Amino acid sequence: MDIAMDAKALNAFLSQEFEQVAGQYQVERADAAGVTIRLNVSYDHLRPGGTVSGPAMFALADVAIYCAILSRIGPVALAVTTNASIDFMRKPEAGQDLLAECRILKLGRVLAVAEAMIHSAGVDEPVARCSMTYSIPPKR
Amino acid sequence: MDIAMDAKALNAFLSQEFEQVAGQYQVERADAAGVTIRLNVSYDHLRPGGTVSGPAMFALADVAIYCAILSRIGPVALAVTTNASIDFMRKPEAGQDLLAECRILKLGRVLAVAEAMIHSAGVDEPVARCSMTYSIPPKR
Amino acid sequence: MDIAMDAKALNAFLSQEFEQVAGQYQVERADAAGVTIRLNVSYDHLRPGGTVSGPAMFALADVAIYCAILSRIGPVALAVTTNASIDFMRKPEAGQDLLAECRILKLGRVLAVAEAMIHSAGVDEPVARCSMTYSIPPKR
Amino acid sequence: MDIAMDAKALNAFLSQEFEQVAGQYQVERADAAGVTIRLNVSYDHLRPGGTVSGPAMFALADVAIYCAILSRIGPVALAVTTNASIDFMRKPEAGQDLLAECRILKLGRVLAVAEAMIHSAGVDEPVARCSMTYSIPPKR
Repeated sequence: MDIAMDAKALNAFLSQEFEQVAGQYQVERADAAGVTIRLNVSYDHLRPGGTVSGPAMFALADVAIYCAILSRIGPVALAVTTNASIDFMRKPEAGQDLLAECRILKLGRVLAVAEAMIHSAGVDEPVARCSMTYSIPPKR
Repeated sequence: MDIAMDAKALNAFLSQEFEQVAGQYQVERADAAGVTIRLNVSYDHLRPGGTVSGPAMFALADVAIYCAILSRIGPVALAVTTNASIDFMRKPEAGQDLLAECRILKLGRVLAVAEAMIHSAGVDEPVARCSMTYSIPPKR
Repeated sequence: MDIAMDAKALNAFLSQEFEQVAGQYQVERADAAGVTIRLNVSYDHLRPGGTVSGPAMFALADVAIYCAILSRIGPVALAVTTNASIDFMRKPEAGQDLLAECRILKLGRVLAVAEAMIHSAGVDEPVARCSMTYSIPPKR
Repeated sequence: MDIAMDAKALNAFLSQEFEQVAGQYQVERADAAGVTIRLNVSYDHLRPGGTVSGPAMFALADVAIYCAILSRIGPVALAVTTNASIDFMRKPEAGQDLLAECRILKLGRVLAVAEAMIHSAGVDEPVARCSMTYSIPPKR
């Protein structure tokens, strides 16, 4: 199965279309099995005590799943999240970036379902699990 | 039923303990029925097209639910989200702040469950619904 | 706002179309604000110890939400659940039926989102909260 | 890592403790990586049209996750589900049993998180995905 956008194309698309998140995310892998996205953790992502916040992890999962879908269907900027469920399971490692490994579970005409597993760089056990449903707008 | 922290106490607590979010949220109501939190929408909360992003809405729900719980049990900074489920139902109104109305559904010794309904200021229909479970650390 | 099916019409529809659940559920209310469905608790719904099982509560929420949607759009047998999130918050009362109070949060052309709050007959505090997204098939 | 209960022990436990579901489920695998549970699909599990119902799939996921946890911690009958999120992605194959492949994501002192992927026997693509959080009672 060919993919529509590789890591380079996804990184270019993010830089171009999503100014607000410029520099925060790096697509490290985009292949038939899914994508890997790195969150470059900085002060704004932290809670008191230096741990990455839940919302920062949710945002990483959202970008990862969006990239996983676009990697398969091309640069559809208007795909939107309709539902998400997230479990926070372990405290992230202080001072480490977070990585989201994402795979698509269903890619329909109208809805796509994907799941991201988030872990600290250098640590295998998942910090968080997030599944999302995206609505895909009709082709023009 | 008395509450442990009112709107003024919650706002002071947020300013003091959560530097990263200073100025973004305002607690407008904290009473026996729950809390209302306002997100002062700014550029950083938007996606291309000017609409508030899913992660910004998730962050608002997280702050609202955290405040609803602290309003009942006092300033327990270490309460953490274990699970969340969010439905994005309507596009927010461009140029309007978002308000989260939050009520507690269960306040146990170990776990609390609450739900936030998010709507655009001036519009009644909900933009998003978010339920969360928080883990409450043991009293020292 | 008129509704398309009232309690009597919904009960007739369930009896006619859903043999497997005949006699288990009773629609007690169907109006503009939503529906109330009763689960006639029997042995098959219980876990050891006599308490209603999680799956039995999930099934009640599913029927309630389906009825709430059909009450608004008419007898569309092919509407299907795409996603659900459920929180189990309190133990149900032994020997009591369960009631699901359900309201629609969004009724779109393609997707509907609704929430059911389940409680034991005679007890106000919710036993469970369940939100679901239903996919509505295109009109022929 | 040793497991506390293998497939034989889990099947014996289910028969003994959960009369209501006798004969419906078969534990086919229980090892360090997780469990596989088969739902012996029968008339009671179907919706009109002959397809397995959402609640029947939720019940399968619940049994699978319960077994996965007990496989690790031993026969703790009082472990209870606190939260679940389920995505229904494809129609099950008519006339086929369902299999749930389940793995534990977190096994804490108080909470466990696991995920079940459900598919029709003989078909690889998942029919449903379900994640659950279980509360583990304190050891006596």
